Amino acid sequence: MDHINFRSFQEAGQAVLKFLHSRFGFNLWMITRVEGKDWIVLQSEDHGYDVQPGQVFQWADSFCFHMIAGKGPKIAPRSEDIPLYATAPINQQVNIKSYIGQPLIHEDGSLFGTLCAIDPQIKSDAIMQEVELVELFGNLLSNILQAELRQNEQIRQHERLEAEALRDGLTGLYNRRAWEKLVTTEEERCKRYGHPAAVFFIDLNDLKKVNDSLGHDRGDELIQQTANVLRNTARSNDIVARLGGDEFVILSLENDEAGAEVLLSRLMQALKQEKIAAAIGVAMRHPAQGLFKAAAEADRRMFEHKRQLKSEA
Amino acid sequence: MDHINFRSFQEAGQAVLKFLHSRFGFNLWMITRVEGKDWIVLQSEDHGYDVQPGQVFQWADSFCFHMIAGKGPKIAPRSEDIPLYATAPINQQVNIKSYIGQPLIHEDGSLFGTLCAIDPQIKSDAIMQEVELVELFGNLLSNILQAELRQNEQIRQHERLEAEALRDGLTGLYNRRAWEKLVTTEEERCKRYGHPAAVFFIDLNDLKKVNDSLGHDRGDELIQQTANVLRNTARSNDIVARLGGDEFVILSLENDEAGAEVLLSRLMQALKQEKIAAAIGVAMRHPAQGLFKAAAEADRRMFEHKRQLKSEA
Repeated sequence: MDHINFRSFQEAGQAVLKFLHSRFGFNLWMITRVEGKDWIVLQSEDHGYDVQPGQVFQWADSFCFHMIAGKGPKIAPRSEDIPLYATAPINQQVNIKSYIGQPLIHEDGSLFGTLCAIDPQIKSDAIMQEVELVELFGNLLSNILQAELRQNEQIRQHERLEAEALRDGLTGLYNRRAWEKLVTTEEERCKRYGHPAAVFFIDLNDLKKVNDSLGHDRGDELIQQTANVLRNTARSNDIVARLGGDEFVILSLENDEAGAEVLLSRLMQALKQEKIAAAIGVAMRHPAQGLFKAAAEADRRMFEHKRQLKSEA
Repeated sequence: MDHINFRSFQEAGQAVLKFLHSRFGFNLWMITRVEGKDWIVLQSEDHGYDVQPGQVFQWADSFCFHMIAGKGPKIAPRSEDIPLYATAPINQQVNIKSYIGQPLIHEDGSLFGTLCAIDPQIKSDAIMQEVELVELFGNLLSNILQAELRQNEQIRQHERLEAEALRDGLTGLYNRRAWEKLVTTEEERCKRYGHPAAVFFIDLNDLKKVNDSLGHDRGDELIQQTANVLRNTARSNDIVARLGGDEFVILSLENDEAGAEVLLSRLMQALKQEKIAAAIGVAMRHPAQGLFKAAAEADRRMFEHKRQLKSEA
């Protein structure tokens, strides 16, 4: 490890997990993200539990949930002795006899996730003396994470500037190529930090009719009008693109399920107000499946919505 | 200026030093900067050696110097057993029987300084097993330092933008108030990271003569011409200010003694080429004394130079 330069939260995290495993044992060490009800594994040092990055558990089922609430200790050599740990639903999924946990926090002091460990064996009480070391690692990792998240905002701005050249001439939205590039880098970020994200597919219902009956200029106006509605309704960090024809997409970043629902109803209202008929499909990114899967799912739901609208007509 | 967010490396460093002291003892734990021949103490957790931040030793005298060269171990429970440690000149200044050291590195892999400890007692060989922990702390602190130095570049740009309003009307250089503000924040940075810096005072010899014989417009031209020479000769990060009348100053940042000499000769050549007669005084920032002391010293040397020029005339 001599002279190794950690380039990232990822590398620093892996080094800390490896060290802690070699020092204290424990079959599973993890760095996790808490996101709404989800407890997402970002990194793991696994020696028998078979828990992989991207795996999702219920946050409320975990030991960490109680540790964060201050209702359970950070180090429990015999977790059965702690009532809330003994009865935690996670015990039905994995065999846990000992536990270590420490919060990882955002710059504003809010919870990001945890650094934690479990083992199927009871441990010696001596490990309880290691709480300061585990806390220090948690604080150093939080610090590294925070700096990286700040820096990411700047990298993101830079990526967006680079994508400026890839704008659709008619609407000024990102074109399909920009969309593919930006989704690829945002997927990397989601994977690394467990950020939630939502994908919206939007498809106009009446473009062909307008083109045929009122002419292509009127059709182009409808496309531009739609682009304006989407741009003005999406959040400032969101990526709004026109994939081609009358097909639009929004990637709503660091947005959870509740936020995505709010955005959906705002979108539907704004389109209705402008008398634009469109089918919409939405899907959340699942940590184990990624943004491309979510995009495919949103596309599928959009078509379903379109079919439904036709059968109603 | 309240934008400075120096908290993290400083706070992380203090937390690591405190932890290491409580875990392993050792009367002195330090975070140091290596700068040319200087070995600068940036942070210390001192229990008896009376070594304070800002104190400077000779880098080549230290144990760390040999450790970094790969010629001495990172952990020496009996430093007398290591020939290069036993004969290191630092032993004449402080009583050392045991040693721990680990490099802190810049993003490009070059040496920033060290995390290290000394004690006047021989230690148990058991501490040699702790090398991985010390390495991990060194790597985590390096990461935090690197992110902070990157961020500081942005904070600095922001400070410069804010100081734009404080420019001298005649020359476009920073005025005295901008100079005082910018020096204050740069001094904080120098103190925190041990950055070297040089201060140049420049004073025109003939302004009064020009004003009296050729008129004030010609005098103003001379001032503007001088400002252009200084601006074009200084490095991009340097702060060039007009303190008033024919008195100019340059703060050359992250510049060491050799670099300051190069800049001085470039300045003298550029002024000569433009036929501008000026007295110049230069001083390096000393880590224990700071930029304000260096500025006072540069000012004093400029006056000395002026007196010397007059006596030669």
